[in-house]
Amino acid sequence: MRSFFKVKTAKEVLESLRTVQPLGTETVFMTDALNRILASDIVSSEDIPGFQRSTVDGYALDVRDTFGASESLPTPLVIVGEVKMGQMPDLGVKRGECALISTGGMLPQGCDGVVMVEYAQKIEETVVEISRPVSPLENVILADDDVKQGQVILHERTLLRAQDLGVLAGLGIEAVEVFRRPRAAIISTGEEIVDITEKPKPGQVRDINSYTVGGLCTGLGVMPIYLGIAGDSLEDLKVLFEKGLSQADVILLSGGSSVGAKDMTLDLFLSFADVELVAHGVSISPGKPTIIARKGNQTLWGLPGHPVSAMVIFDVFLRYLFAKLSGLANPASYYRHAVEAELDRNIESASGREDYIRVRIVTEDGKLVAKPILGKSGLISTMVEADGIVKIDMNTEGLYRGDNVKVRLF
Amino acid sequence: MRSFFKVKTAKEVLESLRTVQPLGTETVFMTDALNRILASDIVSSEDIPGFQRSTVDGYALDVRDTFGASESLPTPLVIVGEVKMGQMPDLGVKRGECALISTGGMLPQGCDGVVMVEYAQKIEETVVEISRPVSPLENVILADDDVKQGQVILHERTLLRAQDLGVLAGLGIEAVEVFRRPRAAIISTGEEIVDITEKPKPGQVRDINSYTVGGLCTGLGVMPIYLGIAGDSLEDLKVLFEKGLSQADVILLSGGSSVGAKDMTLDLFLSFADVELVAHGVSISPGKPTIIARKGNQTLWGLPGHPVSAMVIFDVFLRYLFAKLSGLANPASYYRHAVEAELDRNIESASGREDYIRVRIVTEDGKLVAKPILGKSGLISTMVEADGIVKIDMNTEGLYRGDNVKVRLF
Repeated sequence: MRSFFKVKTAKEVLESLRTVQPLGTETVFMTDALNRILASDIVSSEDIPGFQRSTVDGYALDVRDTFGASESLPTPLVIVGEVKMGQMPDLGVKRGECALISTGGMLPQGCDGVVMVEYAQKIEETVVEISRPVSPLENVILADDDVKQGQVILHERTLLRAQDLGVLAGLGIEAVEVFRRPRAAIISTGEEIVDITEKPKPGQVRDINSYTVGGLCTGLGVMPIYLGIAGDSLEDLKVLFEKGLSQADVILLSGGSSVGAKDMTLDLFLSFADVELVAHGVSISPGKPTIIARKGNQTLWGLPGHPVSAMVIFDVFLRYLFAKLSGLANPASYYRHAVEAELDRNIESASGREDYIRVRIVTEDGKLVAKPILGKSGLISTMVEADGIVKIDMNTEGLYRGDNVKVRLF
Repeated sequence: MRSFFKVKTAKEVLESLRTVQPLGTETVFMTDALNRILASDIVSSEDIPGFQRSTVDGYALDVRDTFGASESLPTPLVIVGEVKMGQMPDLGVKRGECALISTGGMLPQGCDGVVMVEYAQKIEETVVEISRPVSPLENVILADDDVKQGQVILHERTLLRAQDLGVLAGLGIEAVEVFRRPRAAIISTGEEIVDITEKPKPGQVRDINSYTVGGLCTGLGVMPIYLGIAGDSLEDLKVLFEKGLSQADVILLSGGSSVGAKDMTLDLFLSFADVELVAHGVSISPGKPTIIARKGNQTLWGLPGHPVSAMVIFDVFLRYLFAKLSGLANPASYYRHAVEAELDRNIESASGREDYIRVRIVTEDGKLVAKPILGKSGLISTMVEADGIVKIDMNTEGLYRGDNVKVRLF
């Protein structure tokens, strides 16, 4: 067995991934743009809404006519017509006059405010009494109140949310340039691993990691390419791996758990030209037996065979990597949401490594309590039971019952 | 203008949606099952891993042979062979013997524990000295440690996460029965609304709501069916609406903002057989001019024309509705994640309604601060600027600067 000769801290690994460049760009229609990442600034080519709009149902008028108006002494105005929705009003409103207007209607010439219908009492077919003063531009949206021409309305490297699609729609933008979604080739190895369609013989287990890792990719908008289970030999593995390298930006080789499988992964990585070893082991538990290498902008991962360990490594490193590849300005948005909870027992931790503890969250006496789940990292059921994970920092000896901890939710 | 004759509180509306039934079921492959909702319990048909496995690299042995072993007085054992990965060992281990085993390997007959390679010193080709005692079942996973045969491993109405896919894979389940994804027909109306491909004339604005509402649907796994903009007449609208009713579970009619458009929506809803009006107006701001009706298990929504209002209504009601239709046991998982932040100014609120305030979140002195964004609900740019919304309860007069508030993140 070769010892891990290049064990890195989580911080060092993240630092070495910092130089990963975003992928190329592509153009997608608005209806496919949710959660995609903008590849360029969006500058408004026009004002929105583009005309003065009423925000209420009421009467458009010259606000000066309403000064001094009150319930006891209302101001009568002559109704000269009605603003039709979606049309430029063909009526002019002079002093002493007003026009009926609906929410969203365009203010007629001569008007600089709208009185709500609640404060206007129609006393004749063409006369309305206004019972309160209206301020200039009251109940009015200006032509450039929403968006100004020339304004950068969305910045490049932004993750597009529903409201961002809305403002793009408002500008008449039907398609946007976004970064290409990362592609991740997923390969399983290990002499003990069989496909989920097979009945395992004694000593064999089904391939779990392809599906947990694939699911985590899908959840981030990364396209998983399931390449299946590699044969037992380095040659078989190499064939599948080359297929991955030709199709994907990231190769996720979910190694067998044995030392032999790990050694083969290392040999495999080093057998390719221009491969630089980033880490051979990381000081994280669970997840130590991880091998990471770079080949230009592609990264090669020898993930731990234990499902829990592989998921922790994904959480700590691959979210960050995929955020970088996706062009995201703030990789933190690709991390899981977190809640604060009170730990319900002491947890020991070896210093010199980061520990990740699975916890279940329950509400007790109106507060969130994190209950650690004990169990080996080979047991996927412990992840099914868990609601999230808690990190114990490298230079801490552990956490105490009653500590407030941050739980990253699944 | 008809007054809102059936104004409901948010609580009343949610109560009336409580009886909505989950949709039918369908079978999907594991690679498409992420975020889908299980339609039935998953019961394990076998034990996992199905055999006793080593969790470390080391030597499998009878633990009784190690009792009393220490660094100063190590116990020598004869190595009788090596366990091959993925195979049932063809060697028996007797007292005084041991077998080399890798992580994940199957324990040979006669062994009930594994000593880590770190505590085993090979002194001859076939002799190893054990320098510490091993407890029974130390470094061993039992045949049913992960999953027991007959155990309910996942409950119906659970949202499938990556780790859930993992345990299904471990059981050899290739496809699962899940609830059908809801379909939402999206229609825009309003004489002032034009398609995003058109250049608006004065008085017209482009259709924003189809894209914000469509994006919100997509984000929840709901399939949006974009039916476009209805013509100006009730007849035109009815044709499009019938198309929606024949294809979708939920019809989201994003109304024009004018009173006329609202009246037409109400007439439209009431023109269908078996339609029961749920609410004509909700005591929420922004979002009051909302019309909700049920036709059996289908729900019809006349959303406010203002983009911000429509998004608030989606957040408060449609997330819940889609959770119900999707069969989710706990609809809360379809709500947005929330963080606590300190409000940086006073906010007034009218009692008798729920207010929703858009806020930006910034970090000041290491704590999260929520900064209210002022602006009319007609302005989509205020949502682009916002990071989340804060709810002000019905019977509160407002919130104060320094208050700790819960911000639902976008």
